[in-house]
Amino acid sequence: MKLSTGFWQTFKESPADAEIPSHKLMMRAGLLHKSAAGIFSYQPFTLRVIQKIEGIIREELNKADCHEILMSMVTPGELWQESKRWDKMGDLMLKAKDRGGRDVCLSPTNEEAVVDVFRKVVKSYKQLPLTLYQINTKFRDEIRPRFGIMRGREFTMKDAYSFHADKESLDEVYEKLHSTYCDIFNRLGLKFKPVEADGGAIAEAGMKTHEFQVLAETGEDKIINCTKCEYAANVERANTKRVNNVDSYGEKLEVISTPSKSTITDVANLLKIEESQCLKSLVYTYYVDGKEFHVLVMILGDDELNEIKLKNYLNADEVLPANESVLKAHNLEKGFIGPVGVSDLKVVFDNGVNKDQAYVTGVNKVDEHYKGFVPSRDFKGSLEFTDLRESKQNDLCLNCNGKIEEIRGIEVAHIFQLGSQYTKALNSTVLDKNGKAINPLMGCYGIGVTRIVAASIEQNHDDKGIVWPKEIAPYHVYFVSIAKSDEVKQVSDKLYSELLKADIEVVYDDRNAGPGFKFKDADLLGLPYQLVLGERDFKADGKLEIKNRKTGESIKVDPTEVIDKLKSLINE
Amino acid sequence: MKLSTGFWQTFKESPADAEIPSHKLMMRAGLLHKSAAGIFSYQPFTLRVIQKIEGIIREELNKADCHEILMSMVTPGELWQESKRWDKMGDLMLKAKDRGGRDVCLSPTNEEAVVDVFRKVVKSYKQLPLTLYQINTKFRDEIRPRFGIMRGREFTMKDAYSFHADKESLDEVYEKLHSTYCDIFNRLGLKFKPVEADGGAIAEAGMKTHEFQVLAETGEDKIINCTKCEYAANVERANTKRVNNVDSYGEKLEVISTPSKSTITDVANLLKIEESQCLKSLVYTYYVDGKEFHVLVMILGDDELNEIKLKNYLNADEVLPANESVLKAHNLEKGFIGPVGVSDLKVVFDNGVNKDQAYVTGVNKVDEHYKGFVPSRDFKGSLEFTDLRESKQNDLCLNCNGKIEEIRGIEVAHIFQLGSQYTKALNSTVLDKNGKAINPLMGCYGIGVTRIVAASIEQNHDDKGIVWPKEIAPYHVYFVSIAKSDEVKQVSDKLYSELLKADIEVVYDDRNAGPGFKFKDADLLGLPYQLVLGERDFKADGKLEIKNRKTGESIKVDPTEVIDKLKSLINE
Repeated sequence: MKLSTGFWQTFKESPADAEIPSHKLMMRAGLLHKSAAGIFSYQPFTLRVIQKIEGIIREELNKADCHEILMSMVTPGELWQESKRWDKMGDLMLKAKDRGGRDVCLSPTNEEAVVDVFRKVVKSYKQLPLTLYQINTKFRDEIRPRFGIMRGREFTMKDAYSFHADKESLDEVYEKLHSTYCDIFNRLGLKFKPVEADGGAIAEAGMKTHEFQVLAETGEDKIINCTKCEYAANVERANTKRVNNVDSYGEKLEVISTPSKSTITDVANLLKIEESQCLKSLVYTYYVDGKEFHVLVMILGDDELNEIKLKNYLNADEVLPANESVLKAHNLEKGFIGPVGVSDLKVVFDNGVNKDQAYVTGVNKVDEHYKGFVPSRDFKGSLEFTDLRESKQNDLCLNCNGKIEEIRGIEVAHIFQLGSQYTKALNSTVLDKNGKAINPLMGCYGIGVTRIVAASIEQNHDDKGIVWPKEIAPYHVYFVSIAKSDEVKQVSDKLYSELLKADIEVVYDDRNAGPGFKFKDADLLGLPYQLVLGERDFKADGKLEIKNRKTGESIKVDPTEVIDKLKSLINE
Repeated sequence: MKLSTGFWQTFKESPADAEIPSHKLMMRAGLLHKSAAGIFSYQPFTLRVIQKIEGIIREELNKADCHEILMSMVTPGELWQESKRWDKMGDLMLKAKDRGGRDVCLSPTNEEAVVDVFRKVVKSYKQLPLTLYQINTKFRDEIRPRFGIMRGREFTMKDAYSFHADKESLDEVYEKLHSTYCDIFNRLGLKFKPVEADGGAIAEAGMKTHEFQVLAETGEDKIINCTKCEYAANVERANTKRVNNVDSYGEKLEVISTPSKSTITDVANLLKIEESQCLKSLVYTYYVDGKEFHVLVMILGDDELNEIKLKNYLNADEVLPANESVLKAHNLEKGFIGPVGVSDLKVVFDNGVNKDQAYVTGVNKVDEHYKGFVPSRDFKGSLEFTDLRESKQNDLCLNCNGKIEEIRGIEVAHIFQLGSQYTKALNSTVLDKNGKAINPLMGCYGIGVTRIVAASIEQNHDDKGIVWPKEIAPYHVYFVSIAKSDEVKQVSDKLYSELLKADIEVVYDDRNAGPGFKFKDADLLGLPYQLVLGERDFKADGKLEIKNRKTGESIKVDPTEVIDKLKSLINE
């Protein structure tokens, strides 16, 4: 591709709304055109990256016996009403009335649509297992689209759906696709990790779910990772063991004065004890089927509550910290809350709390705490324990006792075992071995195609610009020609033709511009190799330079060696 | 691909709403899943055809220096308001409010969006000419979606847009893409014809437009085609010469009695003259900028009015046959209308009418006609002549006097010279050679990707099913194995592996079904070659059969020759 006749323009500044490196760099490198909040058009280089990613995904899924289809982007409201998700999806789903007054929407996901395709064709267990997939545009009307194509409203997604006569088959295909996903992300040149994920409260028992996280410091997701074994989980779901368990503080339940000490840190400092010798009391409001309830959560003083665990434990639609009127109604004193004497409120203790150990906790009176609070002795309600704390750095692994570290990731894929919720809702049945109609089990397997582009940049960039992995770079070579004389210009043009003939993916910077300008653009665009023909050097020693964008290493090569050398670098 | 583990199901009947062969065959062959009126999901075979078509289009456009981008499917209403098309597009455009209450729509076309992408990057004539294209989903909320994917609401379209500093450059790129389109349709294995098309009333002067028509008896479009020279045009736009011009009828204007003879045919029969010796009087209502007008159109008795020519001539937004109240208001008598004495109505004559010849025409009184009506003598208003008749079979070509034939086609592509209407509306300027800001000229070039699938079937099918051209067939070979013994089954399986290894695109019908069932499915799906391994024949002579789906010709081959023979057939 010749830049002199191409469609490319870099920019000195990134727009004000670009917060993270990938968004800033994509805008500066002229890779995106914003058409509205969270809606982008892809410029030629970007589209090539997307097409390469799609090609790799397609090849690996086909190898894994998945069948590619293409479902419509607009789906009829009826289908969503059949599954009862028309209202549940809320404003995330962009809805419209067509000219006939019928409800339609832009697909934010395709479980309903794929079951509709499936139920028309498959009638017998003999046709199972079956995995269908598509690579298609999705639209989700996010409240706060941001980070460029990392969290856009319109995006490209690969979504696959598997169908099974029994759980064994679901497990088998789930494992196969888990391993296919590893192959895909390896081929994409990404450092990644499959992690256990939260399945939500409604997941059927025994249903697995994993996320694939691209590792990057700027990632939005916190991953709990064992440094010894394979265990890794999204913090939302992680389950680990605390360390630093300390002694009881106090023997019998007695009130101590803690004037103005309304935080765990203040109280621990005052008493010269560890924060984990105190109990943190958190009051939450939660909703089940639209009804409001309240709960008092007790966790160790240096732990944080994992709200998703609480939500799943309560089977709640939503959990929120309670407001002051709730506290008042239950005679709880903000900053000095404790469980003693509480009887009109559900109370739940985190498993990290030792029921037979003594802790400091609030009295529900200003400026007073208890010491010597032993849950099994001093809490009069029935004791309810569950796992509610958030896992953290230096915890221990439940599998191997290895040390836990926190790392950050970008979720680029998510696989779920769905069970039969959608085949039931849409009344899709097949006959099993005994001729009985059953609702097939389903798995679903998503990859955020366009998000991978951004995630790859988050993982691979430096202060000069993008550093594409070879596997998905839009082109492999950026050929900077700094020719002043017609003679050297002709050498450049000839070499470019030869590179094309040799099937090397090359961008030819033949623009009428200075070397500084061209090198800056080359670094910003970040193709893996830069081939430089500088007039002065070339006239002096007859050689060109090949530079590795990532390492900065460069070598001198003879014009006759350029093609072989580039080919071996690209294929190594 | 093995059918035993595949996702394919044929049907005995096509749905009641399927009217044309391609729609019927696609539904029976299990190639489409209807999700709503005019909205389909594509099954694996169909998607492969679409991907092959896209691949060919992409290759040829890239060769022609077009740059591929991908614009968003959802576009903001603001852009359409900027070009004043938000309201003009009417109900064809599916509109919605996003969660922020902002207008958005599903792109029915992308002139606005591409100018928005262009104006951000291109600032100088030096960057021109430039052609951008995308292959993307479009949505048009058709009043009456029908014919399957021939006229769907959601469909895949390739749309290209070129930008130019002057008309010379526009003409050059237009011709280049015209020729690229011919290359594309040749490679797609289609019989087609580029034809002159109607540019509409608002087209800037001198702007060309052509349609590419796939020739098929079931085509919706009538094409006027010269049997001698290259001339071909959509009937909407065609311009040809009448034959069978006959003598005057009558000398002076006189009333004759024509009781109950209210049609041209009746009157001509009564008077024993040619229909072309009578003038047909047609009254139309038309709208310009929302205001209503009326016109009396005079054409020869055996001609038909081309309403599009009338609309363009009148610069009207719409033309409609006038209703009876209009006739009454102008004292025109239905069945006996004529121009004599008409002064309160615009009157336009078709060029086919000879102003100095005598014709029969109505008197505006029941049961009476004039004979001897000579326009130049007997019509008192100013004479207005223009081309309004519809071209027809046996007309003569204006270029070469060759004989005209009517053929039928399916419009699969349309190219336009747009001029500067969109760059003006969206205020997109570049600096020209003299440093002056100008609005670039544009061309636009569409191909209906999914429609090509249907058009190809209309052109290539027989009573047994589809007959895919090799170039876009989902696979090349349908391997029917009729193995009863394990021994022959193993031969089949081994041969299938060898075919795959040899990169032959093969569907392996290894299903547990009878020969009749398999042959029917093979013919219905219509892959170019059928490879048959019949147990009895194979045991008798050790040979297989290769059958050409189109011609029905078959040859016997040794197992060792199968791959070479298939390869040479596929590549010949």
